[in-house]
Amino acid sequence: MTTARGFAAQSGDTPLAPFTFERRAPRANDVAIDILHCGVCHSDLHTARAEWGGTLFPCVPGHEIVGKVTAVGADVTKFAAGDVVGVGCLVDSCQHCPACDEGLEQYCENGLVGTYNGPDADFGHTFGGYSDHIVVREEFVLKVSHAEKDLAAVAPLLCAGITTWSPLRHWKVGPGMKVGIVGIGGLGHMGVKLAHALGAHVVAFTTSESKRQDALALGADEVVVSRDQAQMDAHVNSFDFILNTVAASHDLDAFMVLLKRDGTMTLVGVPEHAHPSPNVANLIFRRKTLAGSLIGGIAETQEMLDFCAEHGIVSDIEAISIQDINTAFDRMVKSDVKYRFVIDMETVKAAA
Amino acid sequence: MTTARGFAAQSGDTPLAPFTFERRAPRANDVAIDILHCGVCHSDLHTARAEWGGTLFPCVPGHEIVGKVTAVGADVTKFAAGDVVGVGCLVDSCQHCPACDEGLEQYCENGLVGTYNGPDADFGHTFGGYSDHIVVREEFVLKVSHAEKDLAAVAPLLCAGITTWSPLRHWKVGPGMKVGIVGIGGLGHMGVKLAHALGAHVVAFTTSESKRQDALALGADEVVVSRDQAQMDAHVNSFDFILNTVAASHDLDAFMVLLKRDGTMTLVGVPEHAHPSPNVANLIFRRKTLAGSLIGGIAETQEMLDFCAEHGIVSDIEAISIQDINTAFDRMVKSDVKYRFVIDMETVKAAA
Repeated sequence: MTTARGFAAQSGDTPLAPFTFERRAPRANDVAIDILHCGVCHSDLHTARAEWGGTLFPCVPGHEIVGKVTAVGADVTKFAAGDVVGVGCLVDSCQHCPACDEGLEQYCENGLVGTYNGPDADFGHTFGGYSDHIVVREEFVLKVSHAEKDLAAVAPLLCAGITTWSPLRHWKVGPGMKVGIVGIGGLGHMGVKLAHALGAHVVAFTTSESKRQDALALGADEVVVSRDQAQMDAHVNSFDFILNTVAASHDLDAFMVLLKRDGTMTLVGVPEHAHPSPNVANLIFRRKTLAGSLIGGIAETQEMLDFCAEHGIVSDIEAISIQDINTAFDRMVKSDVKYRFVIDMETVKAAA
Repeated sequence: MTTARGFAAQSGDTPLAPFTFERRAPRANDVAIDILHCGVCHSDLHTARAEWGGTLFPCVPGHEIVGKVTAVGADVTKFAAGDVVGVGCLVDSCQHCPACDEGLEQYCENGLVGTYNGPDADFGHTFGGYSDHIVVREEFVLKVSHAEKDLAAVAPLLCAGITTWSPLRHWKVGPGMKVGIVGIGGLGHMGVKLAHALGAHVVAFTTSESKRQDALALGADEVVVSRDQAQMDAHVNSFDFILNTVAASHDLDAFMVLLKRDGTMTLVGVPEHAHPSPNVANLIFRRKTLAGSLIGGIAETQEMLDFCAEHGIVSDIEAISIQDINTAFDRMVKSDVKYRFVIDMETVKAAA
């Protein structure tokens, strides 16, 4: 075993603070990774603050990990020391159910293992990427082929990127399609970039006029301020697909009416309080569908990383020191980040 | 013009009573039809009683029509006097929008014309099938190839049949699929018959244990009493597709959890009061979809009629005289019908 230095919450109402813990010695199919950068996802905050229930403490969050391989087990064939790699939301699954067989480990029927707060035979529960290193079985390690200078900005692709990529691909977004992205935050800003790169006509929906120029810069062809009914009305019955990244309770029908016949709106956020009940007539009268999507599988995460490297796509980030994580959490609650905080892991190594 | 004898409601709170009105003389592309049978749909009741708002009086309901052609206009090529034909929920549409071009006239972007209560240039609004004859443009007339003795039981195929057929076909129901039909009434009993004939493993959901034998006789492979949680739990994460025909407000999540990953539940009824808001987590964690579907297009209605004739499928009906229509409405409110009333139009001819 090795000793890891990280930051953990000891309870839902205590701030994250330095924490030392054990990582397992690499098994034959394991990859040991020195963590360079870790993105800060809203899930980290919700879990660390025990807002979703079920948090296992101490909680070391972090599932947007980029690092360098330091060692591999004897059976590992895809990775070698020195490789730049990523780890996302999953570190294990059953590997033999229909979902795993299809490369959709996020829907594993026997229970996926989250990168943090998941079940772990050795240590009770998994510890995530707010730490100096991690040991992960080969099947859940991704190759990163971006340039070295971009690696911090690659980290959020491992959750925010794949969570938007998977539905865009599943619903076959591409040229000739009009696609809406609702909510221009950590997920939504990636949705705009990816849908644009996939060739769709992209309309960004934001509640704030102040985000118009930013959304256009991200790649949106049009920006609609969703609080302006006249702007919304101009898009009625026109969208092939809408990716809704907003986790707060809101009126889904405001967007359902913008879909054309046979259009789909896919939700990727679970609201704390239920959305108002959607109007069934909006589904029936133009055969529309309301769907959900969870993160993405390992194969499509690799596909997304390769696509992003090829197209020069990374997240827009604000790099922080681990010492600033609690302030970062507070700023995230106020949506005061463009668009993702990423922890420079040199700072955890210096601190802990 | 010709004088038609029918039954109409003069207001939302008066019973249907004999009513005489004019039909247009057949135009070059029209088919004149002597009505033999007309099914009694819940929409007839809701419209006649002004429960949905927007009813134009006098209201002659009826959009499950089977009859014989008496005359055709000069340009009509598909029909001749003596042909047995059907007319469903639609008698016109724009014929040039993308929906009409795809044979999905029910989603016409310029406004479909309902068989009753629709706009009509000559008479203000359309009058439906509770009458002795009707004149309909050729494109909205269907060929009926069932045996003469089955014609009364064919009538409900024109609405209840196509409303269930269209989603079953759109979501590609067939062999190897496990399909649920929720609600065993006018629509649901057709859903069971059609899904069974399409080769699916069919599970009928009913609130009433008393419908078990009937549902099995209709073609269900299994019957689940939805109020019995143990029976419901036995089917969690197992359905490819669920067709939900229940228009009353109910807990959609009770059925959403029964879908497998990537499964779809399609609603065909608009509830008077909204369903409780569905749990978004049920959509996200297995990429499920909630959809809607409206009636069906003319081409797929013809496909359904031909399929039913080939497979010996008709509705289970109770034939009534037009004089019993108000009693029939009252019985429908209590779900006291197996499974569709069909008016014998000889009785309107005798009465009016």
